[in-house]
Amino acid sequence: MPAYIYSRTVRLQDTDAAGILFFANWFIFAHEAYEKMMEDIGIGFARLFETESYIVPIVHAEADYNKPVRVGDEIEVELTVADIGTTSFTVKYILRTTDRQTAGTCRTVHVTMDKRNNKKIPLTDELRQGLSGYLPD
Amino acid sequence: MPAYIYSRTVRLQDTDAAGILFFANWFIFAHEAYEKMMEDIGIGFARLFETESYIVPIVHAEADYNKPVRVGDEIEVELTVADIGTTSFTVKYILRTTDRQTAGTCRTVHVTMDKRNNKKIPLTDELRQGLSGYLPD
Amino acid sequence: MPAYIYSRTVRLQDTDAAGILFFANWFIFAHEAYEKMMEDIGIGFARLFETESYIVPIVHAEADYNKPVRVGDEIEVELTVADIGTTSFTVKYILRTTDRQTAGTCRTVHVTMDKRNNKKIPLTDELRQGLSGYLPD
Amino acid sequence: MPAYIYSRTVRLQDTDAAGILFFANWFIFAHEAYEKMMEDIGIGFARLFETESYIVPIVHAEADYNKPVRVGDEIEVELTVADIGTTSFTVKYILRTTDRQTAGTCRTVHVTMDKRNNKKIPLTDELRQGLSGYLPD
Repeated sequence: MPAYIYSRTVRLQDTDAAGILFFANWFIFAHEAYEKMMEDIGIGFARLFETESYIVPIVHAEADYNKPVRVGDEIEVELTVADIGTTSFTVKYILRTTDRQTAGTCRTVHVTMDKRNNKKIPLTDELRQGLSGYLPD
Repeated sequence: MPAYIYSRTVRLQDTDAAGILFFANWFIFAHEAYEKMMEDIGIGFARLFETESYIVPIVHAEADYNKPVRVGDEIEVELTVADIGTTSFTVKYILRTTDRQTAGTCRTVHVTMDKRNNKKIPLTDELRQGLSGYLPD
Repeated sequence: MPAYIYSRTVRLQDTDAAGILFFANWFIFAHEAYEKMMEDIGIGFARLFETESYIVPIVHAEADYNKPVRVGDEIEVELTVADIGTTSFTVKYILRTTDRQTAGTCRTVHVTMDKRNNKKIPLTDELRQGLSGYLPD
Repeated sequence: MPAYIYSRTVRLQDTDAAGILFFANWFIFAHEAYEKMMEDIGIGFARLFETESYIVPIVHAEADYNKPVRVGDEIEVELTVADIGTTSFTVKYILRTTDRQTAGTCRTVHVTMDKRNNKKIPLTDELRQGLSGYLPD
């Protein structure tokens, strides 16, 4: 399957006094995988901020939590692109522990906007092509 | 309307290099409102962690982003309890800027679990009653 | 004494699996107090980023931890300006719990830089005057 | 030189609206390197929290910032143990960009405490021996 794999250890700052990952930090794991994938298709955030005329803000984010994870746990984030529209795209993330169990899932919806006026614009061909490498078969 | 209101300024650590709030931090604003509301109904997290036999982990979280917010913006979080089930409850958050525009919304679903074995248990009467004060009419 | 007082509750995201505040988050408490003080002297970060020609990056930060703080604890941050130099200034923070005990202290050193070339420049008169309101007698 | 090397990319959540790394997050980079080193000497935080009778809280932390770092920058953290005392130890961190320039430095001082009563206790032999592998020659 054309998925992008990103690995990350749960660190102390990711956890809270309940002894497990603080729920909002799931999105940090997901977004790190997304940033790394964007770099690998040649459209890293450094380039986006410095030289591109568009931005890709998130308009929706959601997560489900299947089992608690703790400091030191190794998490594998499996990223796929669920949908590519005219001015938006959706990314899905499955977060697994080393025993291959699903610890959680995330989904983020991104739109492409003109940097100067925050108006929606179509995805560039380069972005569309890069993302399409991670569409499910 | 029986809503709980919580105010919070967007601080530098909430923003990212895009110049606006980092999306995952919306959940921090929401959760701060939730923690404060829980304190006000007498079930703060200090008490939950120290003396109660149950925990209230989040099993689902989602957010929509309507407009960008920036450092220094004052955000009003309007919290309502959307649903109270047998072993779970749902909290909704509307995040507004000072011009009364909706900047975003969040939703978190919580379950009550026995601290010793992580099994779902019914909400205590106290928790049910406290939360019901913020159910819409 | 000419101190600036800022109050903040320890929230779940500030803590870690050790059950206490994650050490790096002390600096977030301190910086929130600093941002609020800067707003009160009329030089908030929104204005700094949008209309000013200078920035005030931190070149040194340090903290001492005297006693652990936990979720729900109310922290009072007492901010004073320890030193105002030609191109830099130093801010000190005492973080107290409600029993008036010192939970920790912080110190941040800031320089004023020209936004265009990152070269050090003298503090503006406005900044110097604003900060001097919080110099110890 | 007996240094421990840890690599980490600057991610969007590490930055703020000034376009550079938020100062407090330097400590997160440093602590991640420390957590990984502790795992490698067999004393990871998962084990510390679950089975050990002692904790290693930070009593002092400081950082110097030499040059700004931005999203996408690769940071190499070089960790050394600067000092091992009877009930405390000091860790130093040099943070470099890929051009081998020093972007910043950190220092953290840790004490060993009995988990039951928060009283200082001597470092265990295992901890002392593990840390001594990263003392400078």
